[in-house]
Amino acid sequence: MTHPINDLDEVVHQRVRLGILAVLAEARRADFSFLRKSLDLTDGNLARHLQVLEAAGYVAIDKTFEGRRPRTWVRATPEGGRAFQREVRSLRELLNQVTTTGEAET
Amino acid sequence: MTHPINDLDEVVHQRVRLGILAVLAEARRADFSFLRKSLDLTDGNLARHLQVLEAAGYVAIDKTFEGRRPRTWVRATPEGGRAFQREVRSLRELLNQVTTTGEAET
Repeated sequence: MTHPINDLDEVVHQRVRLGILAVLAEARRADFSFLRKSLDLTDGNLARHLQVLEAAGYVAIDKTFEGRRPRTWVRATPEGGRAFQREVRSLRELLNQVTTTGEAET
Repeated sequence: MTHPINDLDEVVHQRVRLGILAVLAEARRADFSFLRKSLDLTDGNLARHLQVLEAAGYVAIDKTFEGRRPRTWVRATPEGGRAFQREVRSLRELLNQVTTTGEAET
């Protein structure tokens, strides 16, 4: 049997990106400022991780205007939603295995 | 309220290191080969991540001999055990928040 960490996708598992996808799993879409504040990130850090998620096809980014004010909306793609659900399943499996026993050797 | 990802320690959260600490939470100690096989890693990759955990004071490494055969044992330090438990708590908190609602904006 393979260890649950082997099912973790580094694109999704990374701390900040996991946070972004967790927020987007709760909300249909979130704007850039909401993500930045919720996750306590700098603009640059958030932008960098959104780029990684977008390149993987896990988020879609819509730049809109409200009057003259630009606004950036982020949403998870169906593929991103599925990747997050896979991560959640693997983490649950890992957490379910947290117990204490003896020695482990080959 | 701060998002659970802000309590994640990158040293512990990284996929491979999380796996190492999860194995060491189940076993009092594990040998190098057991970790390498359990987590499906190369020698170099495992060695690199053990180095990061050792530098953080989260694991202790004992190089022993059985007859003429060298054997490397790895165990979590009390600090490493606590760091893993903090990660487990933060992940559980994050997973508990996984639900679906509407939009999120500032």
